[in-house]
Amino acid sequence: MFQERTAKYELIARGRELEYIFHPRSIALVGISSDPKNFTAGHGFLKGLLEFGYCGQIYPINPKAAQILGLKAYPSVRDAPETVDHAISLVPAPLTPQLIEDCGAKGVKVVHLYTAGFAETGEKEGERLQAELLARARRLGIRIIGPNCMGIHYPENGITFDMRLPQGAKESGRISFLSQSGGNAVDLVHAGPFRGLYFNKVVSYGNAIDLNESDFLENFAADPNTEIIAAYIEGIKDGRRFWQALKEAAKFKPVIVLKGGRTAAGAGAVGSHSASMAGNEDVWKTLLKQAGAIRAYTMDELADLLVVFSHLRPLAGRNAGVIGVGGGNSVEAADLCEAAGLFVPALPIDIRKQLREFTPEAGTGIRNPIDTTNLFSPKELSRTIELVAGCAGIDFLMIQHQLGISFLRDEGRALFEAALDAMIETAVGIAKPVTITLRHRGGAQGMSLLAETQEKCVKAGLAVIPSIERAAIAISRFVSYHEHRNGVQPRGAGI
Amino acid sequence: MFQERTAKYELIARGRELEYIFHPRSIALVGISSDPKNFTAGHGFLKGLLEFGYCGQIYPINPKAAQILGLKAYPSVRDAPETVDHAISLVPAPLTPQLIEDCGAKGVKVVHLYTAGFAETGEKEGERLQAELLARARRLGIRIIGPNCMGIHYPENGITFDMRLPQGAKESGRISFLSQSGGNAVDLVHAGPFRGLYFNKVVSYGNAIDLNESDFLENFAADPNTEIIAAYIEGIKDGRRFWQALKEAAKFKPVIVLKGGRTAAGAGAVGSHSASMAGNEDVWKTLLKQAGAIRAYTMDELADLLVVFSHLRPLAGRNAGVIGVGGGNSVEAADLCEAAGLFVPALPIDIRKQLREFTPEAGTGIRNPIDTTNLFSPKELSRTIELVAGCAGIDFLMIQHQLGISFLRDEGRALFEAALDAMIETAVGIAKPVTITLRHRGGAQGMSLLAETQEKCVKAGLAVIPSIERAAIAISRFVSYHEHRNGVQPRGAGI
Repeated sequence: MFQERTAKYELIARGRELEYIFHPRSIALVGISSDPKNFTAGHGFLKGLLEFGYCGQIYPINPKAAQILGLKAYPSVRDAPETVDHAISLVPAPLTPQLIEDCGAKGVKVVHLYTAGFAETGEKEGERLQAELLARARRLGIRIIGPNCMGIHYPENGITFDMRLPQGAKESGRISFLSQSGGNAVDLVHAGPFRGLYFNKVVSYGNAIDLNESDFLENFAADPNTEIIAAYIEGIKDGRRFWQALKEAAKFKPVIVLKGGRTAAGAGAVGSHSASMAGNEDVWKTLLKQAGAIRAYTMDELADLLVVFSHLRPLAGRNAGVIGVGGGNSVEAADLCEAAGLFVPALPIDIRKQLREFTPEAGTGIRNPIDTTNLFSPKELSRTIELVAGCAGIDFLMIQHQLGISFLRDEGRALFEAALDAMIETAVGIAKPVTITLRHRGGAQGMSLLAETQEKCVKAGLAVIPSIERAAIAISRFVSYHEHRNGVQPRGAGI
Repeated sequence: MFQERTAKYELIARGRELEYIFHPRSIALVGISSDPKNFTAGHGFLKGLLEFGYCGQIYPINPKAAQILGLKAYPSVRDAPETVDHAISLVPAPLTPQLIEDCGAKGVKVVHLYTAGFAETGEKEGERLQAELLARARRLGIRIIGPNCMGIHYPENGITFDMRLPQGAKESGRISFLSQSGGNAVDLVHAGPFRGLYFNKVVSYGNAIDLNESDFLENFAADPNTEIIAAYIEGIKDGRRFWQALKEAAKFKPVIVLKGGRTAAGAGAVGSHSASMAGNEDVWKTLLKQAGAIRAYTMDELADLLVVFSHLRPLAGRNAGVIGVGGGNSVEAADLCEAAGLFVPALPIDIRKQLREFTPEAGTGIRNPIDTTNLFSPKELSRTIELVAGCAGIDFLMIQHQLGISFLRDEGRALFEAALDAMIETAVGIAKPVTITLRHRGGAQGMSLLAETQEKCVKAGLAVIPSIERAAIAISRFVSYHEHRNGVQPRGAGI
């Protein structure tokens, strides 16, 4: 116990070494377009910093402009009136060696290269440029993020990589995400508020010629404001260091890893994306398992896992209580739960009796899954949820709510809203973890009702997962994680 | 060849025996509520018939009403002024034996029992009622659909089971669906127009005490207006007959089967849903495979398969050309394709050279998947699609279009629309099959743009599949089906 605590503080001390990267006193945008109408990445970064309320100095660097978006511009980073801690490179690749020299002269600590066109092109010249860049940065004591990446999103400090994020993305959270793909990083942050996911630090680090996955993993592991770590990784720079960092991080926090390039086709794509070696799938499988990391196979799965890990308390077992409407749909839910390694045990007779008191006999099922027409009767829906949650043998609930477009009409709408409110209130109030799945029948109306309903559920703090299949997979891995940590054997089905 | 043609006509002759079920000259709604404001199933059926333009006589049967929704009502089915071919039972289960007697006296040919509360309740009384019902029907020469089901949707003849269907569902198509679940049947028909799926006959047949899966399968197999058959089945009544019917049907048409209750939990749910025995999963696996049926594991998969089978020409091989934006997303697409049994071969150098002529070097990939910022440049996007489609080694294309919410603003919107139009026009024009996947970043705006874009693509006749993972799975089974039919070995990767 004492040893473990010592290890934790050593980990924090090591991870803190990089903390300065996230707290620059000033940021220079080198090579930002002088045309404010220009729809460029540079303006995306600049507007993002302004919208997120970054408090440090911002220096647009462009030799042809006097000012950009109301900020005084400078011909070179050397001309900035005060210290520059962080520079974002927006210049073409061939100009980056000079940029590094300028940054060195100015005392810049970190250069984030949005600039692409290096080793990932597969061309000799790109590789040469990349090597030269790194050599110069090392000589000048500059740390590099990238190249070929989106850099840092750290709302706590008013830093972001995208001006187009929804309002909710400004809110800080307890998830940190390191991503070798800029698109994946931006996508996840974009979707965050809609899924109830809020971020502490997000780093898109591209080709990782200097700062790499292990650096960020160590920092996230050490950060007391990071409770869950997610990673999208295509290749690793130093296997031994990464293994050590992953093992240490996973000791203290859930680490969810999506490994890009697990197949031959994916590995080929990895080469031309981040100039990485994808590595052997069997090695990755063993490494992630032994480190105690949680694996995701798609970005959708990664987001689902984040929803479950950030919203649900640890689960005691694998017994699901499933509530929804539709016999075929209930059968499918049961099949999908069991296929994912969960159980859907028949409820005890006394609970069924109580359910039957207010559940019509015809066209319903109360065995589990509960197939109930009471999905649209507020009181009865609440009572159903409470009865299933009150069953000692049920570890968690999965509620499937049906969004028929008929609800948009007349009295149907009020009925739907009342039942939804009752469901949310009850689901939030019960002692057992719950996931919500919203089913709609397509079309613009169905989608709009889905979006609205999901926003309501997420606002109430509920875990919303788009399908029962995805919910079952995420929950199963969540339980496996806690079983692994607690050294318990998977608990069997049956009540 | 001659033998096969003979078999086909024998099949048609047998299947035609039931055709009268879909062509009733009149329909009685027995037990429909007299209150027009009542939100009941009976009014759903009645309004559905009126909205779909059913041309036969409609007789609402209710002893307490003089007329319902403007139609003259009758106290008993016996009082209808003319022949009644088809009766829909909306009365409580205990009243159904008397209803059958009345129908027998009137010469009704088919009774569809929406009424539930029979063997599926697991109660002795329900089982007894069900047996009595069947005995009376047999004695009186009445065929039964159900009980515990939604019955027939046959837009060709103005018959439907749901008044709340979208306009597009009135259009007839070439898919027929037999479903032991009413919810699954209604869901699929609802979602149909949004996915470009149009139906010939859909039958929800519930407990199947008389007419069962084999009857409908034979009818669909024989129907020249049915080109693709889909089935959701929980249990079968006569294994030998079903095996024969399935084998025969699959000889002439694709038959896509979702078997509900493939796990212990699912089988338990099947019992309380349609009072069926789920049967052994291994037997089902072998049976479906040997019959040459295509298997779906969820209703989503079933719909995806229907989209692919109804929209794409048979594929020559498994080589995908994948076009999208985002490096991480491209890596994931490649991984998912290969995991599903497809290939994503590197494009030949000459094609890559041509792509590079108009694809920026930085931040893109042209190996395959094509990761291109040109997704938003109409001309370049069209040219990209044409070049990949023109590559001899590529069998089909998968295009992922990105729907950023930024597109909703100002000039971004016009640019997005122009690129989308170019994509649709080119995708429709090329000689190779294409699937479209639309990615959005969540929220009400993202969903609304998704719905709008999907409607546009579907209207143009394109196959839209919600994710690359689902598209890859559906295409892989589609290719397997044609490989199996043509007796060819799966073709390897590489160009």
